[in-house]
Amino acid sequence: MKGKIILEEAFNLPRLAEQEAKKYASVNAAVLLGKALADIDGRIAQMDEAGVELQILSLTSPGCQGETDPQAAHAMAVESNNYVGEKVKANPTRFAAFAAVSMHDPKQAAEELTRAVVELGCVGVMLNDFQSSGADGNTMLFYDDPSYDIFWSTVEQLSVPVYMHPRLPSPLIYAQLYAQRRWLVASAWGFANQLSIHILGIATSGVFDRFPGVQLVFGHLGEHIPFDLWRLDHKLDRDRFPEMRMAKDKTIRDYFATNMHITTSGAFSTRSLLSAIAELSTSRIMFSIDYPYEDGLMEGSTWFDNVPISNPDLLSIGRENALRLFKLDRAPHNVQPGLSLRELEVGGLRGPIYPDDATHLRTSTRTGIQ
Amino acid sequence: MKGKIILEEAFNLPRLAEQEAKKYASVNAAVLLGKALADIDGRIAQMDEAGVELQILSLTSPGCQGETDPQAAHAMAVESNNYVGEKVKANPTRFAAFAAVSMHDPKQAAEELTRAVVELGCVGVMLNDFQSSGADGNTMLFYDDPSYDIFWSTVEQLSVPVYMHPRLPSPLIYAQLYAQRRWLVASAWGFANQLSIHILGIATSGVFDRFPGVQLVFGHLGEHIPFDLWRLDHKLDRDRFPEMRMAKDKTIRDYFATNMHITTSGAFSTRSLLSAIAELSTSRIMFSIDYPYEDGLMEGSTWFDNVPISNPDLLSIGRENALRLFKLDRAPHNVQPGLSLRELEVGGLRGPIYPDDATHLRTSTRTGIQ
Amino acid sequence: MKGKIILEEAFNLPRLAEQEAKKYASVNAAVLLGKALADIDGRIAQMDEAGVELQILSLTSPGCQGETDPQAAHAMAVESNNYVGEKVKANPTRFAAFAAVSMHDPKQAAEELTRAVVELGCVGVMLNDFQSSGADGNTMLFYDDPSYDIFWSTVEQLSVPVYMHPRLPSPLIYAQLYAQRRWLVASAWGFANQLSIHILGIATSGVFDRFPGVQLVFGHLGEHIPFDLWRLDHKLDRDRFPEMRMAKDKTIRDYFATNMHITTSGAFSTRSLLSAIAELSTSRIMFSIDYPYEDGLMEGSTWFDNVPISNPDLLSIGRENALRLFKLDRAPHNVQPGLSLRELEVGGLRGPIYPDDATHLRTSTRTGIQ
Amino acid sequence: MKGKIILEEAFNLPRLAEQEAKKYASVNAAVLLGKALADIDGRIAQMDEAGVELQILSLTSPGCQGETDPQAAHAMAVESNNYVGEKVKANPTRFAAFAAVSMHDPKQAAEELTRAVVELGCVGVMLNDFQSSGADGNTMLFYDDPSYDIFWSTVEQLSVPVYMHPRLPSPLIYAQLYAQRRWLVASAWGFANQLSIHILGIATSGVFDRFPGVQLVFGHLGEHIPFDLWRLDHKLDRDRFPEMRMAKDKTIRDYFATNMHITTSGAFSTRSLLSAIAELSTSRIMFSIDYPYEDGLMEGSTWFDNVPISNPDLLSIGRENALRLFKLDRAPHNVQPGLSLRELEVGGLRGPIYPDDATHLRTSTRTGIQ
Repeated sequence: MKGKIILEEAFNLPRLAEQEAKKYASVNAAVLLGKALADIDGRIAQMDEAGVELQILSLTSPGCQGETDPQAAHAMAVESNNYVGEKVKANPTRFAAFAAVSMHDPKQAAEELTRAVVELGCVGVMLNDFQSSGADGNTMLFYDDPSYDIFWSTVEQLSVPVYMHPRLPSPLIYAQLYAQRRWLVASAWGFANQLSIHILGIATSGVFDRFPGVQLVFGHLGEHIPFDLWRLDHKLDRDRFPEMRMAKDKTIRDYFATNMHITTSGAFSTRSLLSAIAELSTSRIMFSIDYPYEDGLMEGSTWFDNVPISNPDLLSIGRENALRLFKLDRAPHNVQPGLSLRELEVGGLRGPIYPDDATHLRTSTRTGIQ
Repeated sequence: MKGKIILEEAFNLPRLAEQEAKKYASVNAAVLLGKALADIDGRIAQMDEAGVELQILSLTSPGCQGETDPQAAHAMAVESNNYVGEKVKANPTRFAAFAAVSMHDPKQAAEELTRAVVELGCVGVMLNDFQSSGADGNTMLFYDDPSYDIFWSTVEQLSVPVYMHPRLPSPLIYAQLYAQRRWLVASAWGFANQLSIHILGIATSGVFDRFPGVQLVFGHLGEHIPFDLWRLDHKLDRDRFPEMRMAKDKTIRDYFATNMHITTSGAFSTRSLLSAIAELSTSRIMFSIDYPYEDGLMEGSTWFDNVPISNPDLLSIGRENALRLFKLDRAPHNVQPGLSLRELEVGGLRGPIYPDDATHLRTSTRTGIQ
Repeated sequence: MKGKIILEEAFNLPRLAEQEAKKYASVNAAVLLGKALADIDGRIAQMDEAGVELQILSLTSPGCQGETDPQAAHAMAVESNNYVGEKVKANPTRFAAFAAVSMHDPKQAAEELTRAVVELGCVGVMLNDFQSSGADGNTMLFYDDPSYDIFWSTVEQLSVPVYMHPRLPSPLIYAQLYAQRRWLVASAWGFANQLSIHILGIATSGVFDRFPGVQLVFGHLGEHIPFDLWRLDHKLDRDRFPEMRMAKDKTIRDYFATNMHITTSGAFSTRSLLSAIAELSTSRIMFSIDYPYEDGLMEGSTWFDNVPISNPDLLSIGRENALRLFKLDRAPHNVQPGLSLRELEVGGLRGPIYPDDATHLRTSTRTGIQ
Repeated sequence: MKGKIILEEAFNLPRLAEQEAKKYASVNAAVLLGKALADIDGRIAQMDEAGVELQILSLTSPGCQGETDPQAAHAMAVESNNYVGEKVKANPTRFAAFAAVSMHDPKQAAEELTRAVVELGCVGVMLNDFQSSGADGNTMLFYDDPSYDIFWSTVEQLSVPVYMHPRLPSPLIYAQLYAQRRWLVASAWGFANQLSIHILGIATSGVFDRFPGVQLVFGHLGEHIPFDLWRLDHKLDRDRFPEMRMAKDKTIRDYFATNMHITTSGAFSTRSLLSAIAELSTSRIMFSIDYPYEDGLMEGSTWFDNVPISNPDLLSIGRENALRLFKLDRAPHNVQPGLSLRELEVGGLRGPIYPDDATHLRTSTRTGIQ
């Protein structure tokens, strides 16, 4: 499929790239990962090969959320937004950007987000789970606290989606749960464990009731949430938890029809995608890669181009949903909505997979792996 | 769910109703079925109870297609269209209508369809499979013949969908295949066998290539077609069948993204619906009942209201897809698009299923059967 | 996956092979197809490459069922059974065979089947839909007629499965339904249309009630039946059809738990397989190719080896179900039951798909396409 | 369906019941919950009504795992095992039991388990996640530590399954993650978050490699694991984590074919069950309720009896898998294997759902909600 749009794609400021990479790769791979994080322009050739029209860039995790010093965190946000803003300006039909913000001070976050959207053209904001705080980094700030209402109010006014991205837990939690099995702390398992609590905290605190225009996006096919929605809603017992601020007649499932979206980043699983479609509907799912934490763009793109979903769903998940949610049809991105199957090279007979030679019995009318 | 729209709902001219019913019901049931076919106004109370906002009426099968005499067939079309046009006029927010046409003469069919749409407000046309012809009724006219291009051209210009409905086969086929097992000839099996050949004949003859605006709808979750699409496309070998007029680079699957739609009429199967969604996408499926050949509206509606698909998909299949395809938001029908989950009574917590009394341990936060 | 067993695999008597091939391939391909039908020994190399341990051979359709002359039909059965019996004897760990029988005379069919099973070691019998009869070939004999009870009784006593295979319809039906759209008459659509009536005729005539040991197998993911089981059972109205001999308290679905099985022959569709698993359970589905009407064994095997079903289901569908149903663990076939995932090369980490070189960022723990 | 077997069903020692209930229910409901936990004999009438033949009882969470004092924990295990052993003896065809053990001392756990199985007839052991330890309860003992190999070795020798059940986290983790959103800490979300780390710790520490006979069971449709298996295996990068002791050529998915099983306890979600079947196969899933934390047995049983899975799968998940895994066909339980659909009242026509009266048009051949 041509014309795909992807949206959990990390970059790093060149001065920081290699250092960050060491957290998420073996020693041998960290140098390469660091280079891939720092290189933005070089991605275009890969995008062409993989049928990706546009990617939305974001400062890699934990970014500002990992900075316990409020001033340093804010400075990083400003530097990152200015940097990526220039990159987008140079190639606006191939790149867009999420803003980075420090979440130490909700008002400051709202202001930097406003600047990034209004002045730099960012199409949303990426938050890397909780904001680390305190001298020992063990204070975790969650955005379901009422003090963040000013941030959510600004998000709603700007009408830009918020992408919730995972990060490593506090040192204290690491010591209790993961020190003896560190392979489970990050992308394999702990990332989703930690982030899902934060996402569900936001939903159950009533953010979507007070600010119904807020759109939350999260990756990895929903950070465990879609598949346990029934039990989750079944157990949020209003009698037991009268202080839960979420609307009394609503369920988490309801918010998936109005305020939440997921992506396929780093989760190229046919079965899980089919399950997510059944739980949430195609309209709330968007294709993404999680570059460069996934090897290039080809593995995920090849999987997606051949995944056994219907052609209309392929277009929605691969392109149209993101185009609409992030309003990418506007200048300067100018992504064209409503392209046909044929224009996006989906479906149809594109020549036999097997050549019609003496080793085969007939001209095949192959329609691809399904 | 409130606000459902249904579209394979039969009526009969009062003078014919009971006679027709005998073909499709046991002797005991035929009288009741005949009454139900003839009664249009009485349906509104049932619709209210079942959460159905509007139904699109159609002359029951085989209608004009069963008349071997061309003049009698045309006269029946005119009588039926005038009759149902009055019924719709009396209750335009609850009823719409498919036109009936004789298909002996493609030009006459096009003219009567034009009259029914332009003058009487019909929103589409219902064709009951092949047109019976000849003295013995064994001549079967199929609309993939090039002589019907004038009909398809008119359909495209009028921009109204064509619903393909099943009927009994010719006497000759009945004798060969069904006489010893007559329970298989009609709705249980033979209907779909027969009609699917006709639908696939239309697709493979290139009607959708020559008239890309034509929209074909068929019921019973697709008359066997969705679930064997892969094999069908795999075996339509271009080398073997050079005379097949369908575009050489297209598949039947492709037309399901641009020209074909199915309904759930008479097929209230969760598994089959989930399969159809996976094959075709939610966007090509519409809820329907097949009244009165199904017992009232409640069985199908209760099934649909509780089927384990996502809430956004429920709205699309139950209402929005039909609203858009048949342009029911226009006068005189004025069905309102874009209603929310809450307005349509989908999702949410609507009170515990079990009362909070001494026989139960806690206040439940039930979210319905899923 | 290694160790697969396949069971809708055609051969032809060398003297007939090319002639038959012309019915099912373009002129160019017929020569090759004829050769492939005639060559049995040459299949072993292909089987090794595709991970197929054993195939059950059957005389290609229509075989004896296409012979309107009873004596010629019986002679063909005897010749074919003797021929394939020798082939199996030469390679019993790689080949087994279905018997061919003329169905003009049920008693003769029962006797030839007995001879083929007891003396030649056939593991079942392949019936190619109805038996053509009469001077013009328009008489179609169906095996739901009470006169065939002697045949079914013998099948039950011998405890061997019956494979129902499709064939072209009578000339009369061809003329009425397919002459103007001949590409729909065979494997693309008409095969399943025709055969499904016969299968359902057998079930509804009570064969499984009178002979509960009868096991019916059919290919192409069930000849349209699994996906419309709900509607089928819903419409087999006991009041309307008092003469239907099937047990009054049973449904067609019930027989899928006790008497019917399907295969994937010629239907390498992920979506349809997932649907069939949901309808029937893994326990009633067996992998097959439909060689040589499918190009070699690799396309189907590659699809199956990567289909997104669970590993235990892969083993059941790919091997264990057929092993058990056809008792292939007995001499002379001696196929070993209960092999592990590792022994059959399913699951596990079998080396990175991508080499761990400078062009990739990390050593992947790939687990295949899913 | 009759004959169901359920296996995550809690009891409490009468002297402790009400106190424990307060943790998991609103004040009003705690008295009722306490009574339900303490009442074992009274369950039989409910089981009869819900079609449950046998339930496996277990001491309610956290049981011994919540006792930080090793001696008190062991005393509770002995008391509980003796108590439930008597209950089972009184009704062995309706009840079986999981042993409780203190996990402070692996050797003592192994000895008490041996006594419970050999002398008291327990059919397995229930572990409530980590063992609380230390004065402040913040030390969490996980059974993936090598010191527990003696316990796993005994489990393997006794050939009894281990059920891993969730519990509340340590006070420290509660304070960091859940204090501001306490409704997420238990069954709604946190239970699975916490327990899944423990389960995956056991798998990745190589317990199944060293003790291949160990069978682990866990509830709630798999504690989030089945749906993220792809990503989990994809990210357990051998290069990055050379110290991970799990077999280098195995995946977590592999162990689901040999060592792990899930149940439906407290997760009566059709969509999630269908997803779990696709991920793991029917053979690794067992029906359960989570009584009395779910309201009685009827909600879960009614859901399961009507869930749109095939009839053979219903039998496997509802009865046969548990019967085989826990060897319940042996004395004193004597549960009969291999009963038919009819004997278990699955499938078939069991009379019309709608009475055949004047308000309905025909005798229905209903086959239930599907």
